[in-house]
Parts: sequence; C-alpha cells; structure tokens
Amino acid sequence: MEDNQNQDLNKNSDSPENSEENIHMLKEVPENELINLATSWTALPFGERRQKFAALPRTEAEDLFLSLTVHDQAELISEFAALEKRSWVRLLAPDDVADIIQELGIDSREEILSLLDPQTRREVTALLAYAEDNAGGLMSSRYARLRPEMTVDEAISYLRIQAKTQVETIYYAYVLDNNQVLLGVASFRELFAANPTKLVRDIMKADVIKIPVNLDQEQIGRIFSQQNLMALPVINDDGQMQGIVTFDDVSSAIQEETTEDIQKLGAVETLDAPYLKVSLFELIRKRAGWLGILFIGEMFTASAMGFFQSEIERAVVLALFIPLIISSGGNSGSQASTLIIRAMALGEVRTRDWWRVLSRELLSGIALGTFLGTLGIIRIMLWPNKESQYGPHYFYVALTVAISILGVVLWGTICGSMLPFVLKRLDLDPATASAPGVATIVDVTGLVIYFTVASVVLKGLIL
Amino acid sequence: MEDNQNQDLNKNSDSPENSEENIHMLKEVPENELINLATSWTALPFGERRQKFAALPRTEAEDLFLSLTVHDQAELISEFAALEKRSWVRLLAPDDVADIIQELGIDSREEILSLLDPQTRREVTALLAYAEDNAGGLMSSRYARLRPEMTVDEAISYLRIQAKTQVETIYYAYVLDNNQVLLGVASFRELFAANPTKLVRDIMKADVIKIPVNLDQEQIGRIFSQQNLMALPVINDDGQMQGIVTFDDVSSAIQEETTEDIQKLGAVETLDAPYLKVSLFELIRKRAGWLGILFIGEMFTASAMGFFQSEIERAVVLALFIPLIISSGGNSGSQASTLIIRAMALGEVRTRDWWRVLSRELLSGIALGTFLGTLGIIRIMLWPNKESQYGPHYFYVALTVAISILGVVLWGTICGSMLPFVLKRLDLDPATASAPGVATIVDVTGLVIYFTVASVVLKGLIL
Repeated sequence: MEDNQNQDLNKNSDSPENSEENIHMLKEVPENELINLATSWTALPFGERRQKFAALPRTEAEDLFLSLTVHDQAELISEFAALEKRSWVRLLAPDDVADIIQELGIDSREEILSLLDPQTRREVTALLAYAEDNAGGLMSSRYARLRPEMTVDEAISYLRIQAKTQVETIYYAYVLDNNQVLLGVASFRELFAANPTKLVRDIMKADVIKIPVNLDQEQIGRIFSQQNLMALPVINDDGQMQGIVTFDDVSSAIQEETTEDIQKLGAVETLDAPYLKVSLFELIRKRAGWLGILFIGEMFTASAMGFFQSEIERAVVLALFIPLIISSGGNSGSQASTLIIRAMALGEVRTRDWWRVLSRELLSGIALGTFLGTLGIIRIMLWPNKESQYGPHYFYVALTVAISILGVVLWGTICGSMLPFVLKRLDLDPATASAPGVATIVDVTGLVIYFTVASVVLKGLIL
Repeated sequence: MEDNQNQDLNKNSDSPENSEENIHMLKEVPENELINLATSWTALPFGERRQKFAALPRTEAEDLFLSLTVHDQAELISEFAALEKRSWVRLLAPDDVADIIQELGIDSREEILSLLDPQTRREVTALLAYAEDNAGGLMSSRYARLRPEMTVDEAISYLRIQAKTQVETIYYAYVLDNNQVLLGVASFRELFAANPTKLVRDIMKADVIKIPVNLDQEQIGRIFSQQNLMALPVINDDGQMQGIVTFDDVSSAIQEETTEDIQKLGAVETLDAPYLKVSLFELIRKRAGWLGILFIGEMFTASAMGFFQSEIERAVVLALFIPLIISSGGNSGSQASTLIIRAMALGEVRTRDWWRVLSRELLSGIALGTFLGTLGIIRIMLWPNKESQYGPHYFYVALTVAISILGVVLWGTICGSMLPFVLKRLDLDPATASAPGVATIVDVTGLVIYFTVASVVLKGLIL
C-alpha cells in the first residue's frame, strides 16, 4: 500500500446526502482536482484522459498514475513513446509490473522487461510464472525480513533501513532462517512494545497463517475477511518465503470477480473493462453470444407449443395465461439461482450442502407456488366478465392455472437452486447458471406442465 | 485490524487445484482446527456452533469470537448468560460494540452499554449517533495521535506508549492541534526514516485525504480502492478529528452492499444473514413480496392477451411464438439492466452519463434485435413441415416474428438500461430494477408490439 495521503477530500462538503451531488461539489474545490480526475478517470472519454494526463505536472501525473487500475495503467503505457515508457514502468512495484504485462499480453513481455533494472526484472519474471488469480500472481516480493537471532533493538534498526528502501509494508516483519524458510512473524507494534534486549526468536509468533503460492484469490479473500490481517506470507512447498499478499491486492481482485459473477448472472460474457470503455462492437459481441444461445433454447417453446396447437385451437382461453405461467416459473427460478450463486461465492454454501438447500427450496417452492397459485385463482374468479372471457367452465380454467403455477414455481425453484451445484460439480463456474438461463429452461418445461395439467383438469369440458 | 497471525493454513496443502478440496484437506490437519471452525462457522447448524464454542479453551474461544462477523458475534452474545456477557463484550473495540448494538436492536442498548467501562461507554454512545453505513458509523475512535511540536524521536516514543494501549493501527499517526483539529498525518514509516531531531510539523503531510462523518460507505470504498490507503481520518464540519475508518471495515461493508445488490437484481428482498442461517419462514417471506408484485404485473399479460383473443382464434399460429418473443425482450433487458446497475455501483457510470448509455444501448438493441430476428426467420423458413404447421402464409408469419423480435429486443434494451437511471433520479436504489422486474415490464409491452406487428403484416392474409 502507498503511504501518501495527499489530497483533501472534504473542506466544504457539509451534508452529502446524495453521493453524486457530493462528488460534484467536491469538483468545485480546486485542491481536489487530482483526486477528482482519479475518481472520474474511467468515465472520461479516451481523448480527454490522454490530454488531461499530459497537462499535469510530473509529480501529480505520477500520483495519478499510481492510483489507476492496472487496466488504465496499461492503456497509458501502451500510448507512451518508447523513450518515455521506462520511467513510468520503473515507478511501479514488481507485482504491478507483472500485472501490466499480463494485461498487455505476452507480446509486450520482452519490451516491458527490458525497461527494468536487472534485480526488478528477475523479480517480475519470477512473478510472471504464476497465474494472475492465485497467491503467486498477487504477491509482492518486497516484504520486510528479520533474522531470529537479532535483538529487538537490532531488528528495529534493521527495519529502519528497510523502511527507506522499497518494501511494501513494514507493518509485519517476517523472520526467515538461512534457507529462506519462514519461521515466524513479528508485528511492528509488538517489536515496539517489547523489551529491546530480547531476541526476535522469543517474541515472534511461530504459528503464522501461511498461504501456498497456488491458493486461488477467492479463498485468499475469505481468509483475509475472517482474519482481519493486512498481509499474509506466501510460501512454497518447502516452506520458503516467496512474498506477501496484501489486503488491497485481494480486495480489488475480489471486486473484479464479483463484477464477473454479476455479469454472468445477467447472461453477459465478462466485460474486460468498464461499461463505457468497452467498444460498442465488443459490447454487442459479448451479449450476442448468450442471447443467441438463450434464443435457440427458447425456440423449443415454439416447438413445444406446436404439440399443443390443437388444444389451443379448441380452447384459445389457454393461450391467455401462457406468459403469466412461464414467467412465474422464470422469476422464482431466478430468485433461487441468484441466492445460491451468491451464497456459494461467499463460501456460505458448499457443494456438500446441496441436500440442505434442496430441502429448503422444496418447501419454499411449495409455499411460494401456493401463494402465487392462489393469487391466480383469485384473479380469474374475481374478473368482472369472467364468463364471457373464459367461458362457462371458468372455474376449471382457474383451477388449471393455479395448479400449473404451483407446479411451475416449484420446478423453477428446484432448477434454479440445483443448477449451480450441478455446474460446480462439473468444475464450471456456478454463476453461469444465469437468471435468464434458468428462466429459459423453466419456460420450455413450464409449457409442458401447463398443457399436461390442462389436459387432465379440462378433459371433457373444453378439451 | 488485529495483529495476531496465529494459525497455519498451509503445512501440507501441496496442490490445491480445487478450493473446496483444499478446505477439506486442511480440515484433516489438527493444528488448523480453529481456523477451520471459523471458516465453516456460518455453515454449521446452530446447536453445533454453540456446542463447539463452549468446548474451546478460553483463549481459542476468544480468537474465534474476534474473527466472527458482527452478526455471528451478536448471536453468541445474546445466547450468553448475563454474567458471562461482560467479558465477551469487553473484548471488542468500541466500533465493534456499536455494531453489535445496532445488530441486536435498540432494546439491547442499555444492557450492553452497562457492561462497559465508562470511557468505552462514552465512545460507543458517540458512535451510535451515526448511521451504520456512513463514515461515522464505520469509524474507530482508537487512532494514534501526535502533536505538531514533538520531535521525531519524541513522536516515536509516544507512539511506543500508544502501541501498548488499544489503538487500532499505529501505521498512520494523526497530528492534531489543541482543539483536536486535524493538521496532518505522518506514516510510521516516514517517522522511522526521518531525522530524529526534526519536528513532526515539518515531516507530516498537511494535505491529507479527510472524509466527513456523513460520507456514505460506497463512496468511502471508492476512495480506498483508488488511493491504496489503509486508513482514512474522519472529521466533523469544524475539521476536528472524530476517528479513523480502516480498509477492512469498508471492505466488509462493501461486500455486504454487493450481496444486497445481487439479491435485489434477482428480485429478492435483502437477506440479513447467510442463506443457510435465514429461517425458512423468513426466506419465503423475503421472496414472496417481489414474486407477488411481479405476478400482479404479469397478470397484465393475460389482460393484454384478452384484447387479442380474436386474433389468436383466427390465427392460432400466432400463439406459438409468444414465449419466444417475450423472453427475447426479457433476456436482452436483463443484460442491459445488469450491466448498468453494476457499472453504477462501481462508479463507472453516473447519472449524467444517461445519454451516452442510451445511444450505446439503442445501437446495441438494433444490432442484437436484428441478429435474433434473423435467427427467428431462419428457424421458421428452414422448419421441415413449415407449411402444415404455420400455414400457406408462413413467410409472412416469419416476417411478423422477426420484426416483433427486433422491436421487442430494442425496447427491452432501452427499458433495461434506462430504468436504473430513472430509479436513481427518484433517489431509489438502481438495483431495484431487477432483471425479473425489467422482464415483466417488457413481457406486457412485448405482447402489444407483437400483435400490432401481426395486425399490419398479416392483414388480409390470416387476420
């Protein structure tokens, strides 16, 4: 994390009821120009960004650059002239440079690496060996280290030296043996409060939470949120210290994953950039894929209805309730899948909990289906011109609708809640069970449920 | 943030390809019992939680207790006998106690406050004056403070004393004048690296990012993610220091807000606890509300279809494509609303960007509608028994379907993208424009579009 706090966000924002208003108000305060630029960066049109960046004094441009996301940093770097690139790349910590290379793609690798000093180049190359989304890919190799045999006083002086060089945080100091094996951790605060003549070995905590280099970011995020730590040490299979992952690295990674999950839930292929920055062509392409697949799925509704065409011909009244019935199933399915997918992402529900979820959803589906079915029957029975609209057998029509709704809602709830488990078992992302996807599955089967119920209840009456 | 790192998460987890497998594997390692208990806490049945907690040695129970969410802590506290409560409540920092009181409800206020020492009681009472979701409600009053006229050496000694007492972080020390007005900030690291005889006034940074007590958590989260800071000072209108908000406070707040947004997107009233911990009755109640409202909205489809009953009687073929057409509109509307709601939550799109969004969505809607309409026409024209199923005028039926799909998709895209802006303008949460809600609006209007197109294209043919 950066140590600098160099803008005033407040000054005269008295009562920021409305956050957006508040940002506007902040905009008027000249001292806030830099932070406002950072805040509105993603929303600015591309040309304007480039121009505003060029207009800033060097130090302010550096502060802004450091505060941008990897995506925005990479975009700027790819814009700079070859000679200019070096100083911008060298501003960054090794893990950030590795992220930039991963963002710009493999073609940029040699060019960017050539801009670095040999020591940093080695560090970045090592980091590039890890996937972006696990501990190895998130970690920084610039952590504060101590030897077990130092005294507290020596340790503090040693950290004082390290504080002047590029370590990411001095808040935790890691105690390593000669083979780089992690022995323990001493927080700065503990060193401070300790007797200066004691040995680091005696005040360090030996039972450290360590994470393996290949642990994925979702799980790292959960450990952070449960443990309230600011940094975690990353070790290899031999227990050797590889680097640290800090809270903010994971936090932005988790935010990205959540955005992906939400976009998948809405049946959009993950956008790689903010909405307004994705090109229109890309935006359409990312949506057309799922929309096409769902459309082809929905075509089965036309085929299914074809089978029941003669029923509709004999009893057109049946057609009137088709949208109501299939959408009830779709909506209850969307609710169930949304709840389960989020609970899975937060680690509240695990694969082996499927049975508990199913039993809850069965009961929920019956209760919700009965509730909506009753609403449906009331709607038809209380309709002023029910006899002229729905015919002399309107009661049986109402009964058909109510039973179908119960069946469809129950079925939607089961599909919506179980599909994420099925996907997870198949090693796919549960979020792929998007709400529209569940709705499509339920639409087709909902029609079959409806016409089957109708053929039983209305047999000999209007069918 | 807590300083203690006291569990080993790794030891023998060599290749955790699958995160869930990995958790299971960790479970076998006896040293990890405590962290495993913390990790699986929300998933355990209530009776088991209580029992496992009671079985732990006191210090381990304390570690576990401190690592739990406010919700879980409050649940445990409400379970404890009156005499037992005090030591558990006193374990917590003032801001956490305030959260517990807010979680347990106003009735618990006096009881919990009576358990505290007078100093902490004053701090908690002050914190309770703020809403849970703004800076005042999130802040901690236990920050490290310095006077501007101290030397660096004096400052370090003074922080050494503060480090032994309850300050939340000593990483940033805030420099206050005699009236508690915030003058600047000095990071620990800077003090450390500075010449010991210099004055704090001369090394502190005076242009600090300050946040007002009533800034809401969403905006605080954005500042944190842009600035890479670990803590931010909170001030009142007079510039007096009120407390600090740390990164982890906001991070869990943001996570909660995201969960709320996702649940709203799925048309579920926000659950106040993890899925498996919400009582079945509550779970059904929270879903029934929106499901009922959407159902009543969908009833208009039955009414709308009533108007077109004679058209359906004359041309039953029209009924076959109703589900396909309305769901195409619903799906494209869900995509648009999901994208916009998430972009708004991340601050990528602001109210004043509505025109840019509309112009993008107009073009996206036309492109996606043309794509799906073409798929629809191909589906009908290539159907083997198209003449027997769709009649001699099957080409005009196909044309009707294709034009309707274009219209409905365009309309769905516009509704889905603009509804979040309308809600925001009305000071409502944009996430209330749930995907199912947008789909319901589009369903009703989609039918009108379809039958209007049909009445024009098929006039004199089959209508």
